[in-house]
Formats: sequence, C-alpha cells, structure tokens
Amino acid sequence: MRERCLELDAHDPLGRSREAFDLPADRIYLDGNSLGALPRAVPERLRTVIDEEWGRTLIGSWNQHDWINLPVTVGEKIAPLVGAGPGQVLCTDSISVNLYKLLSAALALQPGRRVIVSQGDNFPTDLYMAQGLATELGSERCELRIVDADGIEDALDSDVAVLMLTHADFRTGRLHDMKRMTVVARERGVLTLWDLAHSAGVVPVSLDDWGVDMAVGCGYKFLNGGPGAPAFLYLAERHQSTARQPLTGWMGHGDAFEFSPRYRPADGVRRFLSGTPGILGMCALDAALDVYSGVTVEQSRKKSLALTDLFIEAVDACGDLAQLELLTPRDHDARASQVSLAHPEGWGISQALIDAGIIVDFRAPDIVRFGFAPLYNRYLDVADAVGVLADVMTSKRYRDPRFQARKRVT
Amino acid sequence: MRERCLELDAHDPLGRSREAFDLPADRIYLDGNSLGALPRAVPERLRTVIDEEWGRTLIGSWNQHDWINLPVTVGEKIAPLVGAGPGQVLCTDSISVNLYKLLSAALALQPGRRVIVSQGDNFPTDLYMAQGLATELGSERCELRIVDADGIEDALDSDVAVLMLTHADFRTGRLHDMKRMTVVARERGVLTLWDLAHSAGVVPVSLDDWGVDMAVGCGYKFLNGGPGAPAFLYLAERHQSTARQPLTGWMGHGDAFEFSPRYRPADGVRRFLSGTPGILGMCALDAALDVYSGVTVEQSRKKSLALTDLFIEAVDACGDLAQLELLTPRDHDARASQVSLAHPEGWGISQALIDAGIIVDFRAPDIVRFGFAPLYNRYLDVADAVGVLADVMTSKRYRDPRFQARKRVT
Repeated sequence: MRERCLELDAHDPLGRSREAFDLPADRIYLDGNSLGALPRAVPERLRTVIDEEWGRTLIGSWNQHDWINLPVTVGEKIAPLVGAGPGQVLCTDSISVNLYKLLSAALALQPGRRVIVSQGDNFPTDLYMAQGLATELGSERCELRIVDADGIEDALDSDVAVLMLTHADFRTGRLHDMKRMTVVARERGVLTLWDLAHSAGVVPVSLDDWGVDMAVGCGYKFLNGGPGAPAFLYLAERHQSTARQPLTGWMGHGDAFEFSPRYRPADGVRRFLSGTPGILGMCALDAALDVYSGVTVEQSRKKSLALTDLFIEAVDACGDLAQLELLTPRDHDARASQVSLAHPEGWGISQALIDAGIIVDFRAPDIVRFGFAPLYNRYLDVADAVGVLADVMTSKRYRDPRFQARKRVT
Repeated sequence: MRERCLELDAHDPLGRSREAFDLPADRIYLDGNSLGALPRAVPERLRTVIDEEWGRTLIGSWNQHDWINLPVTVGEKIAPLVGAGPGQVLCTDSISVNLYKLLSAALALQPGRRVIVSQGDNFPTDLYMAQGLATELGSERCELRIVDADGIEDALDSDVAVLMLTHADFRTGRLHDMKRMTVVARERGVLTLWDLAHSAGVVPVSLDDWGVDMAVGCGYKFLNGGPGAPAFLYLAERHQSTARQPLTGWMGHGDAFEFSPRYRPADGVRRFLSGTPGILGMCALDAALDVYSGVTVEQSRKKSLALTDLFIEAVDACGDLAQLELLTPRDHDARASQVSLAHPEGWGISQALIDAGIIVDFRAPDIVRFGFAPLYNRYLDVADAVGVLADVMTSKRYRDPRFQARKRVT
C-alpha cells in the first residue's frame, strides 16, 4: 500500500501545496479539522506586523497598513472559498458571538415567527448560543426547537424563523445536503444559518447560488489561521439593509470616528462588526489564506475524498480493524474531510496513536477522529496511519493505564 | 527646560522600564492612550507560540502550553493592576462584547429595575452596546438613560439597575471620582459597571475595596498588548454564582469538552467566556504585561502626574500656546494620563505635530490629545513635544492644505 500511496503523492496536483506549510517532521498530523497546521507565510507576516507596523508605525498603521479594513479585506479573501460574491463576508469575533448576532437578526427579520430549529447533534456552542438568546428574549419571542437529523424537515412549520445547522457533523463527518435543505427551508419561509466550521475550504458550497441567508465559519481549522483565529460570517446582500444585530459596537457604526453618541448602523454587512478587531490574529489568518491561491475548493474536495476513500478502504481490508465501527458515511455526498471510528476503548486508542506519532483526536464517548487536510496531508500519511492503527489494535497498547490519567481537553 | 528634563529622567525610578520597549528612534510617541508601544518581550513570545507551540506541538498545545486557561491566567495577571483579588478577572473578547454580557447580567441581577444610566460623553461604543441591548430587550425591560456628568447622581433613582461609566474621559482625560460614585450608587441599590479603558495601568483603582460590581478594560492601551488585543472583564465574586450572561458559548460551559447539548454555566467568572479565545493576541498581551512586573500602578501614576504637570506648566509658560484651550483638569484627582488641548485648527495641528515626529492624535471636533505612558515616555519627551508644538503654532504650519485631504481614522 505504501508504494501505491507514494505513486499517488508523486502525481498529486496539490502535492506542492504541502510545501507552503511548516509541519513537524516526526509526526503525521491528522487533526487539521481541529487546528490547521502552520503556513510558512505566517511567521514572516507576523514579524512584519509586530516589528514594523506595530513597532515602528504604531497608531498610524490603522490607516497606513489598513488595519481598519482587515475585517472586510480578509472576509473578501474567504468569500470565494464559500461561493459568496463581494460585500457579504466579514472576518470578525468568534463563531459563537457571530451566531448570536445572526440568530438575533434572523428573528428580527421574521416577524410572527419565533422558533430556531437545530439538531441535537449540532456542535454544542451553536446550541448554547441559541439557548442564551432564547433565555434572554423569553419564550414569547424565541424558542429553540431541537430535533433529530431526520426530523428537521417536519419541524419547519410556520412558527420557525430560522434553521441553524452545521454543514459537517463534528463527530461523524456526515454532511447535510445543504443545497436541498436550504431550498426546503426557503419554501417554508424559513431562513437558513449554516455553520461551515468543518467544511469551509474542503467542501465546495455555493452560498449565493443556493440561496443561503446566513453562515458562519471557522478561521482555525481548514483555513489554517492559527489557534483561536477570528471567525467569519456571511449575510446575503438581500438582507443587509434590513438586518439589525444587537452587538452594536463602534466598528459597526456608519462612521466610527465621528464618535457620535447615537448608533447608526454602517451600510452593508459591516453593521455586523462589534468591537476593535484583533489585528495579530487576523493578519495570521490573512497570510494563511494565501495557501488557497491557485487552489480551488473543488481540487481540495477531490483530494479529500480520495484520501478518505483510501483510508476507509484500508480499514476495511484489515481484519484487525473490524472491531472499529465506521461512523463516517461511505457515500461521497454525505462525507466531509474526516473519518471517525468508534470503539469502546476509543480514548486509549487515540492516545496510543498520538504516542506513536499519529496525531488524531478523541470525541466523547468513544470516537477517534482522523482529519484529512488536502493541502498538506499526503496519501502516504493514510498508509502510515492505518499501519500504526493496526499495530495499536493488535498489540492492545490502548489499554496502557497511563492513558486514563491524561486530561481530556480538546 | 531640556536640562531640567534630562535631570528628571536621570533620576526617574521608572527610567529602566523604557528599555523593555522597542520604540522608533526618530519619533516621540505620545499616543499610548490609543495604542501602547511594542514591548520587547512580545516578538520573541510570538515567535515561540507560532513556531514551537502551533508549528510543532499543534493541537496538543491546548493542554501542553495551557492555551485553554489563558483567559484566566492572563486575567489573573491583570487583576493586581486594578485592585482585584483572584478569581474575578478574565481576558476575553472586546470591550464592546464584554459590556453587552455585563449589562445584560446587571439587569438580570436587578429584578424590578430596568434602567442603565450613562453619560453622553461616554466612549461611543459603551453607549452603542447599551443601545443595542435596550433595543433587543424592548423598553419594558431596558432603557438607556443618558445624562450629563453633573446629572449622574440625580439620575440614580429606584428604576436604575446599573450605572455604566468610563473612569477616564477619552476626550478630556477627566477622571470620575470612582470610589465615591460607586458608594453613592450602592447606597441607591444601583450596580456599577466601570470602563477602565483609559485608566488601567496608569491610575490606581481598588475594584474590590471600593465595592465595584463590574468592570471592563482594554488590552491595547496602557497594557501594551498590541493592536486590537483582547479586553478584560471583572465581576465581583459576590455576584458570580447568580450572574448569567447571554453569550453562552462553549468556553463558558462547566465542562466544554463534555460536548453536552445543554448549556451549564461554569462556576465562577469563567461563565463569562463565550467562544474560542484568540491565542496569538492573548499571548502578546500576556508577554506585554510583564513590563509591569516590579512596577506598581502607584509608581506609574506618580510619574504620569509629573509628566502631565510638566506639560501643562510648559504650555502655560509659553505665550504662543495661549490660544490652545486646556480641556484636561489641573486637579490631580481629576486627571488621567493625557493632556487634551482644543483649538479650531486642531486637526491641522495634530497632523503638523505628527509630520514633525510628535505622534499625537485628534478627536473631533477640535481636540489634540497628548497621551503619556509612564513606562516609556521620558520627561525629555515633554520638553520636545512642547517645543515642536510652539513651533507649529507660531509658524502656522497647521494650515498646510495637505492636511485636509488626509483621512480622519483613529
């Protein structure tokens, strides 16, 4: 299998992209779905931002280096990765905070409708933010209705203001049929708010063409912006003049430096800005996004499916791995860029893999996640990961009592 | 005057602190009240965080380098600068977002009271966030009452839930009597929320001893954390078990990595966290805060007053400067760490100063602000700034038509 993988790597049209990353030589990193690897362009950019822009130009950099417009310029760099035309994407705050703004805006756009529908398997912070908003507004103005994945369509009645879903399930890597679900929601008068945390950059989406209303996404997973990188939000142009959000900070004002005591929302999507943007983190993401120049999300997707196909095929072929349950769909249309395997000893397995240099992660109660980042993972990584996994399972090293003592964070 | 200043610098107990900063050699930076200068420890720390922690340890750094607890550990580093005991300060989000959380929490803590009192001269984003919350909650649950500085006490009637004030006025540098105002508010059953943006690090405050309920502050001014550094918030321990905030993101959950679909607030102040923290920006602030090790805020304050005294004295002594109106109080108790001078040609004056290497800023409609950062500004900077200012005024260089074309941002 290694020979086949070496051959695939040799002819990989994205093979050169790996050179844009600074990867540890002694490990195979399969956790880009949690924290993307370091693009080589980032340290140099941060050096310039810190030493030159902050250190020398100081306050003048808000103008001279256009820090003030970074939320817009970085947003515009993300836009083509999610099928959004200009003027609709901002880089700002965290996914959590952006969800709050957009959910509140969605309710205000939908008089007479007070329900947010989401699924119980959604990423927790999405549910928590909706719960926070519902508590704040009271049940007469907002209710969070949590349903199973197969109950979503039935739940979209005339009380529903917005459907909030995450495109790729963080546990299983299962994809929603985002295009179809968006159409169904619209037919019922329901706005859509999609969380693209685990899909932006690796699964093509067409926010504009599919008629999506709102979206958020993560800067630090497949966009490689660094730990806790600022998030992004999308608001379709048709809603921008009427949408209002509650976190009306000065950066969303029509003229922040007028210092007026009255808030007046900026034109366009800028009204979804709140406080002063974190420039260091945003510049890191800005530099990181250059790894996508000359690469389409379709190319990224094609390799992602090839990597996960190969991984699933190798797991299938190895008798020692039959005890691991494949949670990720085999169907391409339903599979994001990870493979999740369940096992009662999942925690120990993940730790044994990490100790052997295969960096994966664990999600309670029993899931080992193998994330594949097509811009830097090789086919060879698949072969080596499966080889080590087989060894971990046959040796039962996952039962090492040391693993139980380790903290379960991230 | 230069000789006297050189003498003062030679005997300045904080003189060594300047060496901890990387300052441009060809300019005098008097805008640390807007963006603090670059501490020398920051580039090296960021290099380590990026190259080693992100680049090598990758996802493992959330545990191994304790990224996950940075909002708490950086908060604890800020706490002694604002007179707060442990367990009450978090480094998180922006001032704007933190104000929203705390204002909402204050209203929830005060059943039967629905008014937020603030003053019209407050920093705009503070007013905007309160307006956003009031709009979101509706007038039966929240009203923002804006008064003049001298009408604050009279406004604190039994409808008032919280008094939100900024300690140091960003335009004039006037300080509120925070201790007295906090006592007055408490006597009327009103909670206090203080914005320490322009005072943290340069004006001693005793949040615990004065009985303050809530506070926010800025990481990028006198704390030197870099452009858009994360902000901090303070919530007095006595409120922590009952306070709830609406931006209930996963980082504020009792066990984020339990991935439960139900939000359960963390114990203590941690429940005021929302989304994933921006690690690069927070590490920069963490490193920057070390410039305060071995320096008390009282020392900082003493030098700050000496610098602004000297500046005011020199302006007074120079006949050419009589046309500039001093907006900053002469009274020490009412003066923060800046001197603001008003003049109808203030914009041109600020630009002429900047062109001559004296970095100040302008605030509409007519204010030139001279900020003094006691950790790196010298007495000599005062002499040189006044000298250049006198030259700008006598030469009338501020009328240069080029200045009108410049953008008025920051």
